[in-house]
Amino acid sequence: MTADKHGFSLTQLTSEKIERVKRDPRFKKLTDEDIAFFKTVLPETSVLERDSLTEAEHASYTCDWYNMFRAATQVILLPETTEQVSKILKYCNDQLIAVVPQSGNTSASGGSVPVFDEIIISTKKMAKIRKLDELRGDLVCDAGCVLQELDETLSQAGFQVPLDLPARHICRIGGTVSTNAGGIRQMRFGNLHGSVMGLEVVLPDGTIIDNLTTMRKDNSGYHLKNLFIGSEGTLGLVTGVSIATAQIRPAVNVFLIGLETFDHVVQAYSLARRELPETVAAFEVLDTSTVAIVKEQDFQIPKGSPFPLKETYPFYVVMETAGKDHEIENLRADRLLKLMLEKKIILEGDVARTPDEIERFWSWRNNVPRAIVQTGPTSIHFDVSLELPLLYKLVEDTRAWATKEGMIGRDIGAVYGYGHVGDGNMHLTIPALRDDESVRIKIDDFVYEWVAEHKGSGSAEHGLGMMKAAYLSFSKSSTIISQMRKVKNLFDPNGIMNPYKMFPTKEEEEQGEIVRKRGQVGC
Amino acid sequence: MTADKHGFSLTQLTSEKIERVKRDPRFKKLTDEDIAFFKTVLPETSVLERDSLTEAEHASYTCDWYNMFRAATQVILLPETTEQVSKILKYCNDQLIAVVPQSGNTSASGGSVPVFDEIIISTKKMAKIRKLDELRGDLVCDAGCVLQELDETLSQAGFQVPLDLPARHICRIGGTVSTNAGGIRQMRFGNLHGSVMGLEVVLPDGTIIDNLTTMRKDNSGYHLKNLFIGSEGTLGLVTGVSIATAQIRPAVNVFLIGLETFDHVVQAYSLARRELPETVAAFEVLDTSTVAIVKEQDFQIPKGSPFPLKETYPFYVVMETAGKDHEIENLRADRLLKLMLEKKIILEGDVARTPDEIERFWSWRNNVPRAIVQTGPTSIHFDVSLELPLLYKLVEDTRAWATKEGMIGRDIGAVYGYGHVGDGNMHLTIPALRDDESVRIKIDDFVYEWVAEHKGSGSAEHGLGMMKAAYLSFSKSSTIISQMRKVKNLFDPNGIMNPYKMFPTKEEEEQGEIVRKRGQVGC
Repeated sequence: MTADKHGFSLTQLTSEKIERVKRDPRFKKLTDEDIAFFKTVLPETSVLERDSLTEAEHASYTCDWYNMFRAATQVILLPETTEQVSKILKYCNDQLIAVVPQSGNTSASGGSVPVFDEIIISTKKMAKIRKLDELRGDLVCDAGCVLQELDETLSQAGFQVPLDLPARHICRIGGTVSTNAGGIRQMRFGNLHGSVMGLEVVLPDGTIIDNLTTMRKDNSGYHLKNLFIGSEGTLGLVTGVSIATAQIRPAVNVFLIGLETFDHVVQAYSLARRELPETVAAFEVLDTSTVAIVKEQDFQIPKGSPFPLKETYPFYVVMETAGKDHEIENLRADRLLKLMLEKKIILEGDVARTPDEIERFWSWRNNVPRAIVQTGPTSIHFDVSLELPLLYKLVEDTRAWATKEGMIGRDIGAVYGYGHVGDGNMHLTIPALRDDESVRIKIDDFVYEWVAEHKGSGSAEHGLGMMKAAYLSFSKSSTIISQMRKVKNLFDPNGIMNPYKMFPTKEEEEQGEIVRKRGQVGC
Repeated sequence: MTADKHGFSLTQLTSEKIERVKRDPRFKKLTDEDIAFFKTVLPETSVLERDSLTEAEHASYTCDWYNMFRAATQVILLPETTEQVSKILKYCNDQLIAVVPQSGNTSASGGSVPVFDEIIISTKKMAKIRKLDELRGDLVCDAGCVLQELDETLSQAGFQVPLDLPARHICRIGGTVSTNAGGIRQMRFGNLHGSVMGLEVVLPDGTIIDNLTTMRKDNSGYHLKNLFIGSEGTLGLVTGVSIATAQIRPAVNVFLIGLETFDHVVQAYSLARRELPETVAAFEVLDTSTVAIVKEQDFQIPKGSPFPLKETYPFYVVMETAGKDHEIENLRADRLLKLMLEKKIILEGDVARTPDEIERFWSWRNNVPRAIVQTGPTSIHFDVSLELPLLYKLVEDTRAWATKEGMIGRDIGAVYGYGHVGDGNMHLTIPALRDDESVRIKIDDFVYEWVAEHKGSGSAEHGLGMMKAAYLSFSKSSTIISQMRKVKNLFDPNGIMNPYKMFPTKEEEEQGEIVRKRGQVGC
């Protein structure tokens, strides 16, 4: 729960804090009759009314992990079957009750919590594995399955979920699919549009689209499933997932290397891909201040242990390779490390290959988000895609700008940069010294303008959610947004599904279009 | 050109041969004014009128590679720019002129030729590479680029197109993307929904959706591009493609192995994936009669050379592995071959690793479609997805049924089975002794019913096109088809884009739904 987790008090209600959206008056305010209806569909224990919950319990559904948004939701529903979801959604659609689909509630962009009083349909109680084909590793499961638990089951048959992210122990597959989450091993696994074979989705009118096929190839008609992957619950509610999983590759080497400049990081990336094209599985960059914050919060594993490298450097890379044969992969890893040192691309490096060592090395990367979150009441964080050589320039330019504006020490703690070099995805993260919406807006404006002018995307893997809805048109043209609106209207004509998210207001859209055009972005 | 290629005369006009669809009277018959308009947009030499073409030239656009369909198209347009495509489509949409988008015209399901008198917009003259990022291998190119030519350019920078199919020398990337083509190395490269990063698409109303991003991760809004990948030109015309290409892995080993039963093929597949999870790139099965037909037609390379194995076997597998280091990969390949022999999974096997040897081994697989096509005036071919253990049962059951019906030698030559075991995709192919629509329908009915009853898909990688439109509801539920119709109507309300393809008639849809339900297919 957020309050306990951070040791800070809960953030203000979103409705009091954020001015840019008003509650849509078309949406019905929940009545006793509505609650009574829900209790005809679900057992009473699966209809969580606000008055029956502690503040902490309520916040675990209505406040996001980053403590940025909080809603005044009256009821949280916990269906156990797809048919129950269908009945609930049909009722909400008929009654114009706004709905937020939620699974693990780990969205990093305020995509999984309501804004005002939308009800929550949680998939928590839909957590069964429906089918596991041990020959090929095809998995069919409910949307509420926790990623790590799926991994544990799969590992017994020699497979693993083709997606990995630091929230693996709490995030649920329905949410990761709806967000099109990327994570730290996308280099190896590819994106979810590639690995998800089929979905079961309930549309707002209650229609169940059952397409839980396990066909690797199925060109019989439009690939509708892909519309729901990454649409953040705005078109329908994902209740089931069919996914092609990956064969476990047991011979893992994790490199931790120190580098002088970001240009060297790019060189190291390029060399690693050329030398080990079939086994590079992750390539993550951390700047020196990001490593310092993990140490400061004592978030490394084991606690209190020193950083694995002897010296400090401006940049660090955590790189993982994964193959079948230990002997071969260890040899190739050692050879690459030697080559990088010889070519003076890196200044120092070490390789971990036992489970404990691997966990130790990775902890300096995996615990960055949690370490930063601890340092302030809230944080302003970004998840942008850029051309590789520009990836760290954003961090440098933001830091220089914030310094010039006198914001560091007054409004914000520092500017951290870390991310997935392999996918051109930077997480710029700025802990705020207080929860001040005007500071957030000022920084957001600077960063999203910068990204638009450098032809990037303001959302790489986290989705737009509530946090970045205003900035969609910095990344996408009005032509594309207008097609998106048509699709939204087709599947959710009443607009009840996860409202206020993803789409900008008309005014925001026009402002963004001007900035985007200035950058001559190829939309 | 079809007539020359096969040495047979051209097939009947589709309109005379196929009774299930009638020309939609809403569509305008082309007038001199229309031709005059096209000549205001394009140079005269890019407006190919029927009267100015030889029969062979006309057939190269209006007849498919399998010689199954032929249209009476009056004009073929060859735009060079996206803006020209936009002007043409807008005009056609306003005038209700039906349009078939075409690139390489290699569709195996009659998806790229008109049915009646639809005009053709060919992307042949749009064949420029727009951008190639040598750091990461990101490629942005026109829709009309030939796959093999792209590969040749990419190879200079160490990359390759993440798609490979026997028609690589003539197929064009716009068509492969619109079909969501799979090919022989999908095991390695994944599907196009995973590797295509962005598209430029012209909608029927002339709107240009420019989303040629090179972001590996871009969750800013709906992933609309995925709707156009695999929609067979029925929603819009793809004019540009941005694709993440694959690093070349030079250490290639190609196995050719002989096996006793299909169950052994499955065992070999499973073992290969477990032993070489990071390098298995292709795993293709051929039955003994398929190998015989390549030999009979002398389509192997070099011509006249014997089959690489000493004995004949009921099944053969061509398997490819690709890695970075020759020494390591050769060692691992030899080890796997030895293991397969020791475990008695295979009866004989050999490995090719020089370019000539690799070409020789692969020729026995790659030239199968061409070899079969030579044996009759037309062929009845299938492209189905099934659970792996069922993959060859379809071939056996079809052969037994055709024998029992007395069709072999009277209506058809033989029943061949070959396909992509790695993706659960079988190409059942039956050369017909004459071009008789009633024979085709009889065999289609048997096979698509069989596939529906075994919960497979009637189209794995070729798309539905004209050939399989009637059978869509054998693979997809009416619920899904109704959503597809809504999407079609959203993007192409006048229905001018590639009409008569993909969708069944209402009557066909109802019949298929009965069969599908009988098989209790999870749609």
